[in-house]
Amino acid sequence: MPSLKAVLVIADGMADRPVKELDWKTPLEFARKPTLNRIAETGICGILDPIAPGIPPGSDTATLALLGYDAVKTYSGRGALEALGSNVKVLPGDVAFRCNFATVNQNQTVLDRRAGRIENRDSQKLAESLSQVKLKTPNARFLFKSTIQHRAVLVIRGPRLSANISDSDPGTTGEKVMDAKPLDDSPEAKLTARIVNTLTREFHKCLTSHPVNRERVKRGLPPANMILCRGAGTLPNVKSLAHIYGIKTSCVAATPLVRGVCRAVGMKTIDVQGATGTLQTDYLAKARATVQALRSNDFVLLHIKATDVASHDSKAKQKAEAIEKLDNMLNYLIEHVDLNSVYLAVTADHTTSSATGNHEGDPVPIAITGPSVRRDSVKEYDERSCAGGGLHRIRGVDLMPILMNLLGKTSKFGA
Amino acid sequence: MPSLKAVLVIADGMADRPVKELDWKTPLEFARKPTLNRIAETGICGILDPIAPGIPPGSDTATLALLGYDAVKTYSGRGALEALGSNVKVLPGDVAFRCNFATVNQNQTVLDRRAGRIENRDSQKLAESLSQVKLKTPNARFLFKSTIQHRAVLVIRGPRLSANISDSDPGTTGEKVMDAKPLDDSPEAKLTARIVNTLTREFHKCLTSHPVNRERVKRGLPPANMILCRGAGTLPNVKSLAHIYGIKTSCVAATPLVRGVCRAVGMKTIDVQGATGTLQTDYLAKARATVQALRSNDFVLLHIKATDVASHDSKAKQKAEAIEKLDNMLNYLIEHVDLNSVYLAVTADHTTSSATGNHEGDPVPIAITGPSVRRDSVKEYDERSCAGGGLHRIRGVDLMPILMNLLGKTSKFGA
Repeated sequence: MPSLKAVLVIADGMADRPVKELDWKTPLEFARKPTLNRIAETGICGILDPIAPGIPPGSDTATLALLGYDAVKTYSGRGALEALGSNVKVLPGDVAFRCNFATVNQNQTVLDRRAGRIENRDSQKLAESLSQVKLKTPNARFLFKSTIQHRAVLVIRGPRLSANISDSDPGTTGEKVMDAKPLDDSPEAKLTARIVNTLTREFHKCLTSHPVNRERVKRGLPPANMILCRGAGTLPNVKSLAHIYGIKTSCVAATPLVRGVCRAVGMKTIDVQGATGTLQTDYLAKARATVQALRSNDFVLLHIKATDVASHDSKAKQKAEAIEKLDNMLNYLIEHVDLNSVYLAVTADHTTSSATGNHEGDPVPIAITGPSVRRDSVKEYDERSCAGGGLHRIRGVDLMPILMNLLGKTSKFGA
Repeated sequence: MPSLKAVLVIADGMADRPVKELDWKTPLEFARKPTLNRIAETGICGILDPIAPGIPPGSDTATLALLGYDAVKTYSGRGALEALGSNVKVLPGDVAFRCNFATVNQNQTVLDRRAGRIENRDSQKLAESLSQVKLKTPNARFLFKSTIQHRAVLVIRGPRLSANISDSDPGTTGEKVMDAKPLDDSPEAKLTARIVNTLTREFHKCLTSHPVNRERVKRGLPPANMILCRGAGTLPNVKSLAHIYGIKTSCVAATPLVRGVCRAVGMKTIDVQGATGTLQTDYLAKARATVQALRSNDFVLLHIKATDVASHDSKAKQKAEAIEKLDNMLNYLIEHVDLNSVYLAVTADHTTSSATGNHEGDPVPIAITGPSVRRDSVKEYDERSCAGGGLHRIRGVDLMPILMNLLGKTSKFGA
């Protein structure tokens, strides 16, 4: 008998509420989705609260939960996950931030939080110079890396630090750059805030006089003369999936935050040409990469961002179209894996309302198909049909033990 | 778009078990209740364990849970809630008690725990005299207030106190008044017990010789010559709903205990003429007050006691009649609020068995109707029909996050 394996497909923000535009159906209910329905029909279905009923999760906390971790206990901020996902090494003890290249005036008032969506070429040159800035705090070092356009990450390393500090990013234009402030009385938080504020000043000095910015101004572009920091975070203190279940794991995901969560729990991240994390992503390339990864892994996470992109834009029909493309991708998947030995679970990391454009706290549908599930009578994959399934209502943190148990990878509790 | 609001209707003890008298239907199943059914049909339904499966809740712990608080962690005794609900000010650190005017003989044996259900006129005069009693403990003060008939509250304030002491009320006739005893070794518990015992003696002295009691004996009435204390409690240490969700809240309730819980979490309590907390309460007046309160609040709790009164008397048909009156009240409510912007949730705080007359640990039905709920196929509002609904089985503490998320008042956990 071939060894049992599992694929978990997470469609970002796929679940929704009934929308007037779709005659009070959800995008899932509205979409044509024969493969999702086939997975529901051959599987066991239910609804799932990623964190807890009514709590709107972020993609980071939800993914942590869906990978079996208690997010309330282990989540330690977005910065380190984002940095990890952007191929920046983060060590235990490091404090990491998401950063933006921004444009400020002489009063430090933010004019553009994205410095005119500066091109990679410019932001990378600026980042190289920022990396040369000297930090005088004893034993402290930093890493600064531009990722895409105006986005960057900052990692501070060295003495005893704390992520419990506030953002320097005011989050909106027309406001001044803020001082990072310690959010508790610890010397660690005070020191970390001080380092961020020092770097902010030194970066500003370096950027203001930088040839790239002089050139930008000449071309009529906003200078990228400020670095805004937000989302201070440390690595979550968790054991790897390999340690917990003794499995080999990989993830196929384009979104840096999700890649970061996967790396934080010890998963290998696979790069896929054409996987962009947008509506134009190459779904089939991701499916092919998943089938390929399954040959050498016990568990593969396949994450699709497109469904969430559409709903944040409050475009319910576009979301239904993204679901139809996902359905087509799933068709490739079930045609290329052996469902006699592979379990396939399909869920969302959270509900995103096409009406509000926000992450919401409603549960998401879940279906698991594969050789030994207790197939139920649900025939369609959507929020309301799955609610009638044999899994009933579970939590995000329950899913991984269920899958790992089907794979024979859980240990008996007791005798 | 008008701002979203919510009404939570709690029918005290409305849920029940199947009763022989009603041909093994529950009172909810037996009652004619078109409006409750309409709410179920247009909404999402489920069953709810106020605390946890099998645990019979009090109205105080259940209401705390339904307002989103972890009752197991925050509940700190009935006394302070009862006092708050009786318009007695309770401060952090105070220890409060529910008290009865009672009749004892010369051996301190309780002859009547309600002193012949003494009239307000008499009990209020006696309470005025009791307030004059001098307490010699340094820095200690007390407040004593008669509420309705034989009922009263006592609040002790001053030095470091503890609510971890036993009752002086034996709970039954034919038993002697008990000494309050510290239930732990702390000096606070010892001191508080000593103060209660001193007050019990001094109150007894004052009451025995009181002209009101001499007059009562002449009229052939039992003298109210003893104060029995029970249910020592402090304020629960909780943040207000305004703090947690940034909402304005009010409650329409007649029962002091429920009013006390609402005040403890920062809700405004609204007085309604004709709202009595009995079977004869003015249901429509409460509905009108709720509609009125909704104009200036985000969230209104409407509590009806009548359903519980009937079941404690083991009168299943009378309970069904109270449900029919509640149904009529709900009809007024849905005709006078705009269900395009108002969410309406209807539940009970606990099951009360018409057979045992006790609070029981069975779950209660819950239905939520309003603009964006995932309407399910349930068509009738009762314990068994709602069990097939899209909410499945939730806990009391889950309800408030679900409602507040529908109102857009919850914060995202993570990014």
